[in-house]
Amino acid sequence: MKRIRIGVVGFGNLGRACVEVISERSCLFELVAVFSRRTVKGTVALSKIEEYKDKIDVLLVCVGSCTDAPVVMPLLVSNFCTVDSFDNHAKLSEYIERIKSSQGEKVSIVGTGWDPGVFSLMRIYFDAILVPLSNSSLKSSQTFWGEGVSLGHSNAVRRIQGVKDAIQFTVPKKDAIEAVRVGEVIGAEKKHKRVCYVVAQKCEQDRIEQEIRTMPNYFAGQEVEINFVSWAEFEKHYRGRFEHGGLVFGNDGKSQMEFKLKLESNPYYTACVMVAYAIACCKLVEEEKYGVYTVADIAPRYLSFENVISKI
Amino acid sequence: MKRIRIGVVGFGNLGRACVEVISERSCLFELVAVFSRRTVKGTVALSKIEEYKDKIDVLLVCVGSCTDAPVVMPLLVSNFCTVDSFDNHAKLSEYIERIKSSQGEKVSIVGTGWDPGVFSLMRIYFDAILVPLSNSSLKSSQTFWGEGVSLGHSNAVRRIQGVKDAIQFTVPKKDAIEAVRVGEVIGAEKKHKRVCYVVAQKCEQDRIEQEIRTMPNYFAGQEVEINFVSWAEFEKHYRGRFEHGGLVFGNDGKSQMEFKLKLESNPYYTACVMVAYAIACCKLVEEEKYGVYTVADIAPRYLSFENVISKI
Repeated sequence: MKRIRIGVVGFGNLGRACVEVISERSCLFELVAVFSRRTVKGTVALSKIEEYKDKIDVLLVCVGSCTDAPVVMPLLVSNFCTVDSFDNHAKLSEYIERIKSSQGEKVSIVGTGWDPGVFSLMRIYFDAILVPLSNSSLKSSQTFWGEGVSLGHSNAVRRIQGVKDAIQFTVPKKDAIEAVRVGEVIGAEKKHKRVCYVVAQKCEQDRIEQEIRTMPNYFAGQEVEINFVSWAEFEKHYRGRFEHGGLVFGNDGKSQMEFKLKLESNPYYTACVMVAYAIACCKLVEEEKYGVYTVADIAPRYLSFENVISKI
Repeated sequence: MKRIRIGVVGFGNLGRACVEVISERSCLFELVAVFSRRTVKGTVALSKIEEYKDKIDVLLVCVGSCTDAPVVMPLLVSNFCTVDSFDNHAKLSEYIERIKSSQGEKVSIVGTGWDPGVFSLMRIYFDAILVPLSNSSLKSSQTFWGEGVSLGHSNAVRRIQGVKDAIQFTVPKKDAIEAVRVGEVIGAEKKHKRVCYVVAQKCEQDRIEQEIRTMPNYFAGQEVEINFVSWAEFEKHYRGRFEHGGLVFGNDGKSQMEFKLKLESNPYYTACVMVAYAIACCKLVEEEKYGVYTVADIAPRYLSFENVISKI
């Protein structure tokens, strides 16, 4: 079998993880090039990517979802098939339309990874199968995140003036998990506790704590624990941590479905999911089924070259 | 929206559960008839099913997988779309070919339910995403069944001469679960304990115990616990119990995926899965995508009339 020729766009944590996974699975995949907008050793300037259009089967797009992906993607999808982990749930439909309007005879799979991604699959299956009776207060699928490092929340704390470094752990509350497991419906703000470790000078700590606790969308109205730690402690215990995970629950009053993820490295697992969907991407191209897909649109057997009948 | 017109074939535990789920979801589904080969009040003779060929959108086929389904299905699939929970993993390919050879312009979805079915989906996704390094002893997906009632094993014990009634609980071993969770590979016979409750006369118990323990395929070589109980105890504690469940684990050494099912009623949940695939069946017909499908061949969005984008 011919190996799948992969290009990676972006060389942050996720891009590096993709390179790692591709090299581990070198029987199936070949890394052709890593593209970056910045000048980074070992990468190719993103401006030269068109030269690679006949040399790459699938691009793994590992740029930020907020501002980068909506700008970069239209330039890529006219010439390349792509798999990304776009994670702005609210803007997904708009993002898909934007890609469609510039897409060539290509396949783009958007919003892979774990949430959106694997967790989305679980929510869709759980909700399709478990339908609580109309007179019940049950809601079939509910999601918890953590215990793990939220990069978005960590960055939000880091942006506060006077913060030298910070990390934020999202911790699902045990009593909330137990309540949801037996079918209670609980608001997101009551499901999680947000635990911050912050490096800052003593004289600024009161103000910083205040700014964290009142930050809209991120911390306000939620249970927040703030710990100020020294540089030395931060280096020793918190630098470079990427673990994450979460839970999806379904309960119709008679049946319970539960999916749990425990990740040593959030970017590594996200890369594993993207690489599986790179296989789906190639199979869809082979069948000339061009277009934009989410994980909901792709049958499970597309994710693997194995004969899945043996797994049924 | 027009409701989906359902027929149920077979009126055992699963057929009754399908009728229950259909009546609970009467906004989407209409029960047209239940067909049975035996004369059962409220059912239509299976021999008359052809008269219903324009009155039913999907048949939920709830007959035994061993001997009944391979005989009945070829007669049904020329005129009807079907969803079944055929559960003989080893004979699935042969079964699919048999259906294909007599199928009209129809859709048949085979092997839904939970194993095969939802557990198959999990094994396929887990194995596609988690690929242990080639030098590792890890195996990505592993399945446990229970704690719950195995109908097949209960029936096997009931068939022994002198057994007045019996039930068999499959119990996953806690230490095996913990070992598998951290990545060990354990043979199926070491993963489960089989606990039997048997009603029989005192003078026959030694022989019956011996016959159970040595029964090939079902009990021989496995950890078996046998409890003889009185009629009264059996009636009180064990009659009519249908709970089941199980676990699917994936572990590549860095990431753990875990799916858990806990069911008050095995037939009820199986019926819920079949009914979700009845929706998929209708959508596939609408798109004129005729043929035989397993759960591996169907994209998640087909299982629901909801807009799944909101769940991504």
